[in-house]
Amino acid sequence: MPYFDDIKIGDRREMGSFTFTPDLIKKFAAQFDPQPFHLDEEAGRKSVFGGLAASGWHVAAIYMRLTVESFKREAEAAIARGEKPVVSGPSPGFRELKWLKPVLAGDTLTYASDVIAKRPLESRPEWGLVNFANTAHNQRGELAFSFLGSAFIPRKPAK
Amino acid sequence: MPYFDDIKIGDRREMGSFTFTPDLIKKFAAQFDPQPFHLDEEAGRKSVFGGLAASGWHVAAIYMRLTVESFKREAEAAIARGEKPVVSGPSPGFRELKWLKPVLAGDTLTYASDVIAKRPLESRPEWGLVNFANTAHNQRGELAFSFLGSAFIPRKPAK
Repeated sequence: MPYFDDIKIGDRREMGSFTFTPDLIKKFAAQFDPQPFHLDEEAGRKSVFGGLAASGWHVAAIYMRLTVESFKREAEAAIARGEKPVVSGPSPGFRELKWLKPVLAGDTLTYASDVIAKRPLESRPEWGLVNFANTAHNQRGELAFSFLGSAFIPRKPAK
Repeated sequence: MPYFDDIKIGDRREMGSFTFTPDLIKKFAAQFDPQPFHLDEEAGRKSVFGGLAASGWHVAAIYMRLTVESFKREAEAAIARGEKPVVSGPSPGFRELKWLKPVLAGDTLTYASDVIAKRPLESRPEWGLVNFANTAHNQRGELAFSFLGSAFIPRKPAK
């Protein structure tokens, strides 16, 4: 990822796609969200979702996994160019998480992240705070998931 | 859980406690958040967290698991009393999720949920929307995690 100083509002990161198979939906649900409509096709069909549905927390966890994988690819590319990779700092939290459409077995979500704001931190001059609008669209182009995230990103070291 | 009509602002649900062992932290991270400070003690010690740290999404997923288990216990108690259990509807999303303290290997979080607002839905007379302030405190009594959630809850059927 770029240093805070090189990040521009409107920059987009495309994290790629993920297909929520029945097995993966049930495996997540059994560990973290064991509700019938996340565990069983028939219970899903009878529910408000109308089919076996991924836990909303699964949809969110896959955002994180694809983001980390995207960071890793960038770090490897930086190392291959002989540069030191920039490592993102922690996230203090996020706002306005929305599950807008059910994610049913077989659906594929495509995740992206747009920079919507940035500011330097007076209290921590080596870091800046960047705000992102994170989204996932399904294979029909519908916005299924969104939230406003933020993360501490390192400032460019003085030459 | 109670019907929408029987829920009062200030009602508290105590979901119980969960200890983030090194194995569970690494298992979640390997699946969903494979960053070094979530996967390896030494990398954690060298990070801003100061130790092997649970993914924030793990902390959130455990909120969901303990909540579902709490719902199940209530449903079983209702059935034992000869009543029909009330089943919560889906959540449209949440707001203001905050990771306030690192959750390190060996930390125990205790999760609770307080009703902060409720309103009937004109468009869906069989449901009401309830807002919750969800929290997790660590074994030192520090607030480590919080968010404002909401869920559709069934209205009491007319007699």
